Amino acid sequence: MNKFSIGVDLGGTNLRIAAVDEQGKLVEKVTLGTKVSLGRDHVIGDMCDAIQRTSEKFRDTPLLGIGIGVPGIIDMQTGLLRESPNLPGWADYPVRAEIERRLKTIVILENDANVAALGEKWLGAAKDFSDMAMLTLGTGVGGGLVLGGAIWRGANGMAGEFGHTTVEPEGQLCGCGNRGCLEQYASATAVVRMAREAIASNGGPALARAANSDPEFSSKSIYNLAVQGDEDARRIFRYVGRCLGIVLSAMVNSLNLPIYVIGGGASSAWEAFSPSIFEELRRRSFVYAATAPHDPMATNEGASARLEAGPGRKTIITRALLGSDAGLYGAARLPMIAEARR
Amino acid sequence: MNKFSIGVDLGGTNLRIAAVDEQGKLVEKVTLGTKVSLGRDHVIGDMCDAIQRTSEKFRDTPLLGIGIGVPGIIDMQTGLLRESPNLPGWADYPVRAEIERRLKTIVILENDANVAALGEKWLGAAKDFSDMAMLTLGTGVGGGLVLGGAIWRGANGMAGEFGHTTVEPEGQLCGCGNRGCLEQYASATAVVRMAREAIASNGGPALARAANSDPEFSSKSIYNLAVQGDEDARRIFRYVGRCLGIVLSAMVNSLNLPIYVIGGGASSAWEAFSPSIFEELRRRSFVYAATAPHDPMATNEGASARLEAGPGRKTIITRALLGSDAGLYGAARLPMIAEARR
Repeated sequence: MNKFSIGVDLGGTNLRIAAVDEQGKLVEKVTLGTKVSLGRDHVIGDMCDAIQRTSEKFRDTPLLGIGIGVPGIIDMQTGLLRESPNLPGWADYPVRAEIERRLKTIVILENDANVAALGEKWLGAAKDFSDMAMLTLGTGVGGGLVLGGAIWRGANGMAGEFGHTTVEPEGQLCGCGNRGCLEQYASATAVVRMAREAIASNGGPALARAANSDPEFSSKSIYNLAVQGDEDARRIFRYVGRCLGIVLSAMVNSLNLPIYVIGGGASSAWEAFSPSIFEELRRRSFVYAATAPHDPMATNEGASARLEAGPGRKTIITRALLGSDAGLYGAARLPMIAEARR
Repeated sequence: MNKFSIGVDLGGTNLRIAAVDEQGKLVEKVTLGTKVSLGRDHVIGDMCDAIQRTSEKFRDTPLLGIGIGVPGIIDMQTGLLRESPNLPGWADYPVRAEIERRLKTIVILENDANVAALGEKWLGAAKDFSDMAMLTLGTGVGGGLVLGGAIWRGANGMAGEFGHTTVEPEGQLCGCGNRGCLEQYASATAVVRMAREAIASNGGPALARAANSDPEFSSKSIYNLAVQGDEDARRIFRYVGRCLGIVLSAMVNSLNLPIYVIGGGASSAWEAFSPSIFEELRRRSFVYAATAPHDPMATNEGASARLEAGPGRKTIITRALLGSDAGLYGAARLPMIAEARR
């Protein structure tokens, strides 16, 4: 390889570091646990050690820079982490300054949902597109918007929070203060809550059995029941798809992007919720109705057909392709974009 | 003046033509009725005659071009009007080619809500901003998005349709096919419908009196009752504000723009509905809560304070300033932007 950069995915559970070359080839990957309980200094120390070991390995190749995806809102000017529910005690911590001090090099911080979007845009489902949006269905619902090939950060670096679009104006209270956010109906957490609600109202015998027998009763367990044909489990995923469809309809009508990518752990239940997404989109978005592909679920159409310009261009709603590596690739991409702009 | 361009606002009722110089000075304005019933050839003929008379008047000044705001979806490649509820019989009519043939010059067509946004961005409420969105509350609810100083048209030229964001998933059926669109709760048409609903359920004695005595019972009549303190009329505008607040919350969370402008005829009821907008925004958008100005309704803050960069930058929600001229100025601006890009 000619040049490379280091991407870091700093999650609440895992800390992952990768060396990626300019063609998007991952040449080295390290996965560590994020020892959140030992405090931020310890976590930063682990991260910097791993970054140094990785860059040492490729010492003969020019390092373009270091990009780090962080779960929280980052103040891009100061490099402070303003808020991070998954990294308690990190609020207002000068993350960037501390890492730069230890590594003696410039690093770029970015919100984790934004880097996931950038990863899918660079090498994943939205590879052929310069404008795209991504929804990441995990503990919450993250969002990222890429316009003209670059992350759209907005006036305060807070753009892309599609997960906090209101779906049910008087619905479930959300951690953000709103009621009825998409996150309350389409995250892995929401799937489990809706299953427990169904159980509590005697609405799901199979769900109840699974909840009692499975110590890690999760959205994955509920998806397995849906795959086995359990109607109560299937109803939950239809509701997930309905809520995603309502928000995607608004996104399509407002932004008219060529592609919307759905990723994150809970997107593995795609088969269970996606038919409802397309049903809602056809009904709720006249822009989608006018631009829907012949077979919306066939995501492997030729890139050229998908990229057909102008009025005939199609609106693609599709699964993410890079899985949990999206953020790692996106983070590694950050210094390359910065380099290209220099 | 050094150079000028001609802006046209082709509405379902009025046809307006203006000559505007590069500094945004309106040097000539002509208002004609749009004789829709005489057919599209007649309307195009009236328009071209008025454009020619106007350009003749300034024959010694270089004409930069002609921009036309049209109520409908325009295919930018072919210049066809794809759909236009207010111009029946115009669908798939080659508007641009026909005008260019008659005038023997190049014209630029654009959606009317988009040109209104561009007008407010150039000379109105969003003058100091390069990124902004506008909602136009009229017969329907139009929307326009300006990013980096240019209209964001999306992959098919259909972006900006914020008026068709779902507010009530099982609410009022909309002309677009969806249920519960913002347009069904925040347009002038919706205000009248909600008043008639209140009357039908015996909920508005003053509204009923006004509806019976006023042959042109309109959103303006209902606003007048609200100003006089009629609680039933006031409740309707609170609901308008609530629905606008729900959609603006999603826009703020998704796009994090520095300014959102609300215009159109029904925005004259600003005093009646805007308090509810701000109430919803504070509650529903954590991005707004983090960036709200000290006094959100004081729209005459100094531009420098409003433009403060970075994390301290404020989110402004404000009334449009140019009234019905926004579209005329925006249309005139189109050839200037095209010229600057050449």
